[in-house]
Amino acid sequence: MLGVCYYPEHWPEDRWANDAARMQQLGLRYVRIGEFAWSRIEPDPGRYDFAWLDRAIATLGDAGLKVVMCTPTATPPKWLIDAHPEILPVNPGTGRVRGFGSRRHYDFSSPAWLAAARTITEVLAKRYGDNPHIVGWQTDNELCCHDTALSASPAARDGFRAWLAERYGSIAALNTAWGNVFWAMEYRSFDEIALPVAAVTETSPAHRMAWYRYASAAVVAFHDDAVAILRAHAPGRFITHNFIPMHETGVDNHAVAASLDFASYDNYPLGRADLALADMAAEDFRPWMRTGHPDFQAVLFDQTRGLTGRPFWIMEQQPGPVNWARHNPRPAPGMVRLWSWEAFAHGASVVSFFRWRQVPFAQEQMHAGLLRPDSTEAEAWPEIARLAAELNDIGLPAPTPAPVAMIVDIEAQWLSAIEQQGAGYDYTAILWAWYGVLRRLGLDVDFVAPGADLSAYRLVVAPCLAMPTSDTVTQLRDTPAMVVIGPRSGAKTRDVTIPDGLAPGPLKSLVPVRVLSVETLRPDCPGSISYGNADHASTRWREAIDPGTTRILGRYEDGTPALVRQGRVHYLATLTDDAFLTAFLADLCSEAAIPVTPVGGGFRLRRRGNLTFAINYGDTPVLAPAPDGAAFILGDRTVGARDLSIWTVG
Amino acid sequence: MLGVCYYPEHWPEDRWANDAARMQQLGLRYVRIGEFAWSRIEPDPGRYDFAWLDRAIATLGDAGLKVVMCTPTATPPKWLIDAHPEILPVNPGTGRVRGFGSRRHYDFSSPAWLAAARTITEVLAKRYGDNPHIVGWQTDNELCCHDTALSASPAARDGFRAWLAERYGSIAALNTAWGNVFWAMEYRSFDEIALPVAAVTETSPAHRMAWYRYASAAVVAFHDDAVAILRAHAPGRFITHNFIPMHETGVDNHAVAASLDFASYDNYPLGRADLALADMAAEDFRPWMRTGHPDFQAVLFDQTRGLTGRPFWIMEQQPGPVNWARHNPRPAPGMVRLWSWEAFAHGASVVSFFRWRQVPFAQEQMHAGLLRPDSTEAEAWPEIARLAAELNDIGLPAPTPAPVAMIVDIEAQWLSAIEQQGAGYDYTAILWAWYGVLRRLGLDVDFVAPGADLSAYRLVVAPCLAMPTSDTVTQLRDTPAMVVIGPRSGAKTRDVTIPDGLAPGPLKSLVPVRVLSVETLRPDCPGSISYGNADHASTRWREAIDPGTTRILGRYEDGTPALVRQGRVHYLATLTDDAFLTAFLADLCSEAAIPVTPVGGGFRLRRRGNLTFAINYGDTPVLAPAPDGAAFILGDRTVGARDLSIWTVG
Amino acid sequence: MLGVCYYPEHWPEDRWANDAARMQQLGLRYVRIGEFAWSRIEPDPGRYDFAWLDRAIATLGDAGLKVVMCTPTATPPKWLIDAHPEILPVNPGTGRVRGFGSRRHYDFSSPAWLAAARTITEVLAKRYGDNPHIVGWQTDNELCCHDTALSASPAARDGFRAWLAERYGSIAALNTAWGNVFWAMEYRSFDEIALPVAAVTETSPAHRMAWYRYASAAVVAFHDDAVAILRAHAPGRFITHNFIPMHETGVDNHAVAASLDFASYDNYPLGRADLALADMAAEDFRPWMRTGHPDFQAVLFDQTRGLTGRPFWIMEQQPGPVNWARHNPRPAPGMVRLWSWEAFAHGASVVSFFRWRQVPFAQEQMHAGLLRPDSTEAEAWPEIARLAAELNDIGLPAPTPAPVAMIVDIEAQWLSAIEQQGAGYDYTAILWAWYGVLRRLGLDVDFVAPGADLSAYRLVVAPCLAMPTSDTVTQLRDTPAMVVIGPRSGAKTRDVTIPDGLAPGPLKSLVPVRVLSVETLRPDCPGSISYGNADHASTRWREAIDPGTTRILGRYEDGTPALVRQGRVHYLATLTDDAFLTAFLADLCSEAAIPVTPVGGGFRLRRRGNLTFAINYGDTPVLAPAPDGAAFILGDRTVGARDLSIWTVG
Repeated sequence: MLGVCYYPEHWPEDRWANDAARMQQLGLRYVRIGEFAWSRIEPDPGRYDFAWLDRAIATLGDAGLKVVMCTPTATPPKWLIDAHPEILPVNPGTGRVRGFGSRRHYDFSSPAWLAAARTITEVLAKRYGDNPHIVGWQTDNELCCHDTALSASPAARDGFRAWLAERYGSIAALNTAWGNVFWAMEYRSFDEIALPVAAVTETSPAHRMAWYRYASAAVVAFHDDAVAILRAHAPGRFITHNFIPMHETGVDNHAVAASLDFASYDNYPLGRADLALADMAAEDFRPWMRTGHPDFQAVLFDQTRGLTGRPFWIMEQQPGPVNWARHNPRPAPGMVRLWSWEAFAHGASVVSFFRWRQVPFAQEQMHAGLLRPDSTEAEAWPEIARLAAELNDIGLPAPTPAPVAMIVDIEAQWLSAIEQQGAGYDYTAILWAWYGVLRRLGLDVDFVAPGADLSAYRLVVAPCLAMPTSDTVTQLRDTPAMVVIGPRSGAKTRDVTIPDGLAPGPLKSLVPVRVLSVETLRPDCPGSISYGNADHASTRWREAIDPGTTRILGRYEDGTPALVRQGRVHYLATLTDDAFLTAFLADLCSEAAIPVTPVGGGFRLRRRGNLTFAINYGDTPVLAPAPDGAAFILGDRTVGARDLSIWTVG
Repeated sequence: MLGVCYYPEHWPEDRWANDAARMQQLGLRYVRIGEFAWSRIEPDPGRYDFAWLDRAIATLGDAGLKVVMCTPTATPPKWLIDAHPEILPVNPGTGRVRGFGSRRHYDFSSPAWLAAARTITEVLAKRYGDNPHIVGWQTDNELCCHDTALSASPAARDGFRAWLAERYGSIAALNTAWGNVFWAMEYRSFDEIALPVAAVTETSPAHRMAWYRYASAAVVAFHDDAVAILRAHAPGRFITHNFIPMHETGVDNHAVAASLDFASYDNYPLGRADLALADMAAEDFRPWMRTGHPDFQAVLFDQTRGLTGRPFWIMEQQPGPVNWARHNPRPAPGMVRLWSWEAFAHGASVVSFFRWRQVPFAQEQMHAGLLRPDSTEAEAWPEIARLAAELNDIGLPAPTPAPVAMIVDIEAQWLSAIEQQGAGYDYTAILWAWYGVLRRLGLDVDFVAPGADLSAYRLVVAPCLAMPTSDTVTQLRDTPAMVVIGPRSGAKTRDVTIPDGLAPGPLKSLVPVRVLSVETLRPDCPGSISYGNADHASTRWREAIDPGTTRILGRYEDGTPALVRQGRVHYLATLTDDAFLTAFLADLCSEAAIPVTPVGGGFRLRRRGNLTFAINYGDTPVLAPAPDGAAFILGDRTVGARDLSIWTVG
Repeated sequence: MLGVCYYPEHWPEDRWANDAARMQQLGLRYVRIGEFAWSRIEPDPGRYDFAWLDRAIATLGDAGLKVVMCTPTATPPKWLIDAHPEILPVNPGTGRVRGFGSRRHYDFSSPAWLAAARTITEVLAKRYGDNPHIVGWQTDNELCCHDTALSASPAARDGFRAWLAERYGSIAALNTAWGNVFWAMEYRSFDEIALPVAAVTETSPAHRMAWYRYASAAVVAFHDDAVAILRAHAPGRFITHNFIPMHETGVDNHAVAASLDFASYDNYPLGRADLALADMAAEDFRPWMRTGHPDFQAVLFDQTRGLTGRPFWIMEQQPGPVNWARHNPRPAPGMVRLWSWEAFAHGASVVSFFRWRQVPFAQEQMHAGLLRPDSTEAEAWPEIARLAAELNDIGLPAPTPAPVAMIVDIEAQWLSAIEQQGAGYDYTAILWAWYGVLRRLGLDVDFVAPGADLSAYRLVVAPCLAMPTSDTVTQLRDTPAMVVIGPRSGAKTRDVTIPDGLAPGPLKSLVPVRVLSVETLRPDCPGSISYGNADHASTRWREAIDPGTTRILGRYEDGTPALVRQGRVHYLATLTDDAFLTAFLADLCSEAAIPVTPVGGGFRLRRRGNLTFAINYGDTPVLAPAPDGAAFILGDRTVGARDLSIWTVG
């Protein structure tokens, strides 16, 4: 199904009905509204104006559209900020208050803010909870984008102290757990603890890890509040949130998603490619300039699906050039349709475009919509019309589990940020590199959180399990899958100390190695790892290990062990290159009887139920690796440039 | 005529008479004084010491020198700052107060400052307004250098609010004009409006544009005050200001210059080249290291002349190594004379050197003067002696209008800063690229402001007219010239919104195209534009246009229109490379019967009245493209390295 | 002798005795303790807990170890900061208070801090001054690391004003000395003077130089206080400090060291290489990645020795990967022993390893120790055991003076920071380049401060003497050595003004040249200097000089003088390349009858008494340039990879 994001408050009311009719004609079925409308809903403190919103909902609903309503908390109005300036967050890097004038100008720890957010949410939920046109709700918008998870405000400091007191019980316990005897950092009460900002040099990693956890928990608490209010007053309606990936926000999205019916993602392939590939040479970048990188959408689709394990929505889909990257190219012809189909292949149930009509004013006036500001049809219109027709013809089966699970560990991400040790170590880059190798082996991948049930998988890869709990260890022990655990796993206890008996801590019960020491190298000065008959790069992060009773499968250039195996469990003691990962993971797939189909360039495969999707980001056709007898229900064996084919088998 | 900048307060009084005599002997006729002397003129609040200054003026005047007096407002003394700390500006990027200890430590919005500046200006004007030795005044010094146009002070905020209230009348009108419904940015009163700084993410472009306009207007108001006081008390004396180019300050220099008799410029070719070409490869940079870039002086001479349309002064001319660039090379032998002649060629009436004697103390002690600190003659001395003799022999005719006008639009510059959209888009770089192409076609160029009378020109180029007024449209319609309008023209209304009916807004009455969408590209990933029989680069900023009834002269790589023509008016929808501009503008010159004379390397041509100047920055001689029968009044047909020739024709 | 750094407070008391016994068995004789233990010594204000420390000292002493006690002032506890928040320093670059949470969070100008530091120092000195196990004291720790010499606090401003008042006597004298008439910067009282931070643009160099001097003097005064207290209460014990090199802190380490018995240095070759060589290409960096650069240890050993002219300690020696560089590789096998031997070769009397056992918590948990966190022996253990045995066999003679003195001038360093003039000018880089050339000529080098007695040397090189005093001039006149004075020498008076009669000021009495002007060039755009029959690069900083009566030995590309000689004294007017320095200095050595032994790659020579050390950082053996008949007391004529040989002659 398709949808669109609409802001009736941006347009004269006399256009609404025509807009709604054109949405219907294009094949759109959902319309998201109300996202940033607080100043129109409550123009003065306590004075609400619902009349316009009532009429907007009615107009859209009467046109047969299903409405998704938003809580408007991403943009508190100026009168609220002026009444409670302490709502504004403080930039940890500078100590400067982050002011009004854009969005997300609130502090998750501010009591005044939390009260105000509850009130507006409850007012809206009560007013519209049983509105028959409203089928679901979106909470807030892109929580913690623009680096807003962390604040250095007095409110955040107070909240942090209370959270620590609850977590550690006594200040003595905290001092011991954090190792505060080091550098005489011991506290005499929780009230002595400041936020770990602006210190002369590096603060304690335990201190920072606690702060990251607190900040993430504060986001979850804020969000849980909103969900609870909506659940109370909007019975039978779904609740979702349009997530920013957690590698950008530092928030535990699994925890945020726990209260939701499903997760949503805002998909902007070209802005993402421009920023993420900014250092790429022109000749390497150019093929993806108008398509996005062929793995960057999929990895986030799969991560989003993994947040709840259920089909997800694309709440915002890029329909043309955007405004916020350093450079904002036009999508190649066909890509808007292809990105949408790719989302469905990865388990989307709805793709909703952002936005209906390009708005001629304010910050996003250069962001394309389905219509131009003058209401003429913009470039993507015919692609969406075609897509709607295709979707009408093709029933999408329920998504099926992948053979491969990749464990994504927010604490490994936090550790990567907190304890640098090697400038070449980047948890997310590692995760994406492993994902890319699996995808180029033609594999589908499920993302799971540490401790998730792994019994359905045949291969489980954990690029890093920073501080594994006993649940995680149990799941890894009990899965029938082949298991790969990457370097830095089990490196720390929960309070960021080296485990008794050294790393990998509790993982030693699975693979009894001992990490004797760690070195980190400049990325351009790697060593090597031998595996099979070949040498590959061992790079960036290298552990010297005592292999214990394990079997040695790979060795460093000096002959010491770099990759070992105990039963089904492998411990890889170093970061490597893609060539090693490809050879090694292919071998494991072979042993686990997982068929691999090597693909490359801009070509990728993905299964959904009995359907196989072949996605071609490239500018030349590719012959699909479909079996003889495959029945093509979209396209054919030759997958066109920027096109896809879908087939079923016997 | 030649002049020099002198600071009698820096030197023992017993040297003054000898200094004055040596100035005369060297051929200098003007001497600028008093620029930073506030602490000596008013050593304590309200206690003035004019005795030394009276004697200094008398000494200089008695030696036959014409004195240019300055208002000393660029350096308010410490006692004033301590009495009114709110005079200090606030850095918008950091929120930190910018302190005393250098110069320009004042806020254009501070009432205390404005009062203090008026007082000192009036005191000086009254004292010296009819002094017979003083022939003119310089206001302040290099207004808004060191990024001082914008301040985030409370005074600036209050001034901004008042300015907005006057401009918009009602807060509802402002909310509508800016599109504040977007992101719930609506205000309920002007007192709710803050400066657009320190927000969580991008603020509204309308908000920032208003701030830029306010800041520029505050500078103009401050400056107009000073000029009015001088006009009242210094009858018959000229008033000028030594401008920093507006691409560096963000100030509308045309508005500042409106009250002046003529504009002045401070010319430092080597510092400018070191900073502007810092990313240039060594082999490309080396030829200009000791000469400056062959277009960078001319473009600013022409811009300065364009501020009033009258002959200008070089108020400060580099005479040797300076102190403030990252690297400060020695000028190549001959360049001090050549830069000076180049200024005269472009319409200067006076070139004044900075400074008489290198000062052995404080911030500029490594800045060369005409004398060394020990009063011996520094390197440039003989070049200036030669120059003075040459000027004595050669009468300079009045400057004549150029065949080509280039419209320089401060609002396009502001838009380029406010709405980035593409990191490769830089209004000033575009302007300079077009200028360079015209200059290498051997053409003289006049800079004009939007709305200026264009009836005298045969070619008018407007690299960008961001938000054209009806005056501008009228002038473009009424000129007999060929007209070229560049991309992003008419992109916005005055409040930075997309015009009804899409860009180029009111310019559609001249060239009826419609800008359907815009893409921006990495500079290293261009597309192409076909023109004539060749393909050139289409780069950075590319508009898809509906060509309407226009004639298509150039097309993108996909065949869609990129350059169109209606009557004499051309709309170019993309940024390009120099090769395209050269071919295209040469064709237009041909059609307009403007003779072109392609030149290159370090060689340039410039006419003044009946004189043609050939300027050679290069290190090898060049044969001048003078017609047969040209009469050389300086040099000859072979223009030496770092030398010039001047000729007249029959 | 060998030692180790130990933190008994980090470990259960029941491990202490075993740790002490293992130290002894390894051959360690000294143990440094107490460095950061304030929060354990004084857990609440005024309540001291000495019991644990008494027991720790007794346990270590009873095992035969000599204890080095530290004052714990590098880490004031939180209760002290909360009682006196004004102790915290202020970041001059941002104006933000630097908070608690790491170390060095104190302001050298804070009266509250100075009182608190005196109290804890006196309490400890009284308690342990005559403890028989304690043989010496270390003051504080790594004074001014993490850029803590400069603070922009109110306390620092007040201290600066008082210091200026004492130094200049009257504000008129200060205004004159600094040239404050420039830009109207004149003050009417010392209370008007602020710190030179946050100004609109560059502040006066005199102002900044005074601030640097004040800050350095404040560090010295703080440190002198501690030393005086220790001298009073710990009779017969040595006092030392583990210095950070002054090019990193901006502190005059010669002045700090004046009160000490000897200086100590903390030697971390790999962290230093990773940071200092970060821009080096991979192929050039890789040979030193696991060894450090072959000159970077020696230069700092020699500088540390030069602080007092007496044997020094390595107080902290890297034993494995560290945690604080961008990348932290493992030392190549053998390097821990080789670095230690190299220190002894350069005059160390003790090498002490940091640290005994890797601590599993807090900021340095990834920093290797001699033991792993689980108390097993880490990689360096066998190398240290071998080293201890070798030291037992080899008696180290007293260090002997080198034939070459290099004058290191903190004021030249400050000038380099204050008056940039050329971005390619870096005093420390120049110093190290000259040092490296001398070392590759096989020479030993002593570092001396300006004004030191030079009578014992045969070659004296002064890469820059910024503002030489009459003492310095006298020493240079009276030494029998060949003398080389580099560019920018005598460039300034003490108040950073150009000397009367131009540079090199008082050095003209030695070499009567006159610096006419200075140019600075991009490093990639050099000129040339001819010397002998070759041309070399003249780069970055180039002075035009009037050679007066001197003999011209080298000329610029335009034939003007670049290197001149008067008697034994040479003035070099430009920065150059290593090739020039090698040729020129070798010629001077020849004339001074100093034998040179060119070496290269990772191979270096060093004499101590009658011993010659050949140090090989390289990965292949090198034949030592030992004379026939050399008696090898360690190794032999073939110096192994990452190994050394020691010989005596006749």
